[in-house]
Amino acid sequence: VSKEHLAATHGSARAVVTNSGCANACTGRAGLDTARLMAAQAARLIGCDPDEVLVASTGVIGVTLDAHKVSAGIIAAFDALDVDGHAAATQAIMTTDPFPKEAAVRVTTDAGVFAIGGMAKGSGMIEPRLATMLGYLTTDARIDATRLERALHDACEDTFNAITVDGEPSTNDSVFALANGASGVAIDDRLYDTFVQGLREVARALALGIVRGGEGATKLIMVRVTGARAYADAKQAARAIANSLLVKTAVHGGDPNWGRLVAAAGRSGAPFDLGGARVRIGSIELFADGRPFDERAPEAAKYLEGRDIEILVDLGTGGPEEAVMWTCDLRAEYVRINAEY
Amino acid sequence: VSKEHLAATHGSARAVVTNSGCANACTGRAGLDTARLMAAQAARLIGCDPDEVLVASTGVIGVTLDAHKVSAGIIAAFDALDVDGHAAATQAIMTTDPFPKEAAVRVTTDAGVFAIGGMAKGSGMIEPRLATMLGYLTTDARIDATRLERALHDACEDTFNAITVDGEPSTNDSVFALANGASGVAIDDRLYDTFVQGLREVARALALGIVRGGEGATKLIMVRVTGARAYADAKQAARAIANSLLVKTAVHGGDPNWGRLVAAAGRSGAPFDLGGARVRIGSIELFADGRPFDERAPEAAKYLEGRDIEILVDLGTGGPEEAVMWTCDLRAEYVRINAEY
Repeated sequence: VSKEHLAATHGSARAVVTNSGCANACTGRAGLDTARLMAAQAARLIGCDPDEVLVASTGVIGVTLDAHKVSAGIIAAFDALDVDGHAAATQAIMTTDPFPKEAAVRVTTDAGVFAIGGMAKGSGMIEPRLATMLGYLTTDARIDATRLERALHDACEDTFNAITVDGEPSTNDSVFALANGASGVAIDDRLYDTFVQGLREVARALALGIVRGGEGATKLIMVRVTGARAYADAKQAARAIANSLLVKTAVHGGDPNWGRLVAAAGRSGAPFDLGGARVRIGSIELFADGRPFDERAPEAAKYLEGRDIEILVDLGTGGPEEAVMWTCDLRAEYVRINAEY
Repeated sequence: VSKEHLAATHGSARAVVTNSGCANACTGRAGLDTARLMAAQAARLIGCDPDEVLVASTGVIGVTLDAHKVSAGIIAAFDALDVDGHAAATQAIMTTDPFPKEAAVRVTTDAGVFAIGGMAKGSGMIEPRLATMLGYLTTDARIDATRLERALHDACEDTFNAITVDGEPSTNDSVFALANGASGVAIDDRLYDTFVQGLREVARALALGIVRGGEGATKLIMVRVTGARAYADAKQAARAIANSLLVKTAVHGGDPNWGRLVAAAGRSGAPFDLGGARVRIGSIELFADGRPFDERAPEAAKYLEGRDIEILVDLGTGGPEEAVMWTCDLRAEYVRINAEY
């Protein structure tokens, strides 16, 4: 429905209406009707065209969204609209999230100052692909829809598209970027990179917030893969490591098990040369030149007691490319949450 | 080392020497030397050429295998060799396995009777690919190495290559098939299918044993995907569902969450048409013709209390192809085992 509306308005929108607790996915014709009703209801209240309203839903898949309930909710939400309502909105979109995620930057340029803000939700069923979770980015910069879409793609590749909690892309992943031009700062070719930098900073804060608040998670893990011939190879290996249950449980258990890291990189499908490969946990090199340094394991185990973990795997092929994925540790708590949700 | 030996002998072997507890993987030059020493030691005791001995190891990756210990172990194992020693061997190769896996069939043909036996180990780091875990199949049928290799590939595709515990192909996956011809039954083109059928039966019993004994597992789950245009699409979708943490935790929690099944099939990359898709848990249809049958959820929840679970997802594209993957439920116990192993 959001895509239809964006096509009809050539990328213009006035509002995003969101419900939490029911994903309204795989609900057939009735579900589509309810999504359109949500947009129409919000448009009527705001005083705009229904095509100018985008729709997002999050929660259980395949459960019918009660049109009366959501309609009453939209009226209540409209009555509570407030320029200082961001914290309440961020809270309202949560499902299993342990904390709300919002971020903002102010960007100063020679053409003036503009702001970029954002909020996001997500905790499980997280491995977004193709610039698609619920993320909301707004700016008062003046930027046309085509350029904003390109900026969103550029900013998502190493933020929202570089995170995983459980390797499960969701049916409802969405990231919206809206610009109202209120700052008067026009984003032309010259300011584009500055704008993307700001957008990326906000997107990254939200994306990392999602991982840190991953279901059951206690640690944020950055997986950096280097030494690849192509960026896609580096990302593929980083993704395999970040999604490895054995890596995620080892980090949780404080076990510097570099063997699981090498195994995951080796099976990822990315070109890999064990002879040239290197593994670092924090700044501690545990494997290099084809052999382990097991005497450093206690030091690495100590490092793994922290909450922010950095893992580096060099694929050993001598290439210049690298990529980063962020993930979290896997705890029994994840199983409990998802056996009961 | 096993591959080198098989190349040297053109597929002939007299023994497989195996150690458990140390994978001897990523151990560099020294590790290779130890593997060769194991073969040489076994060959000396048996009285054959070192090239006629294959080597298998399982356990922790990246830990040096103590050559003295393994050498003494091989002597002790040789002294204990016994035609009735299969149960002890099956026990000896276990790591985190909760129970040993062995199977055998006797095949009667008009050319005579032959037997196929096998044993396997494996519990975690299980998602073998390309006919590669520790599995051992033996037969007294007379069959040449080329034909036996083809039969092994044929028998592995829907057995060892159709299981997953945690989506983690291992560094050390191996399946060996050995034939000694003692039955006098020669497997020619006419008997090939009969032979593969027997081999598949043994391989399937072992493969399912591995999944049923998956780390922390309490349920064996068969995922059947139908309605695909190509077999590879069906297998890809079945693999995505079988590896989905959300599906595995839902089954553990007794939650007939068909939405997670549809989501996993839809994101698998296989062509998928929600309008024609169907989901069954046991014989209970929960989704068809684009809509859910939520009133059947309690009946499906009751079914999920069992230990053997069948899940069917039809991709809705009207194709004739189907594939099966076997997996197990995901419990907090898996996390405990792998945080500590």
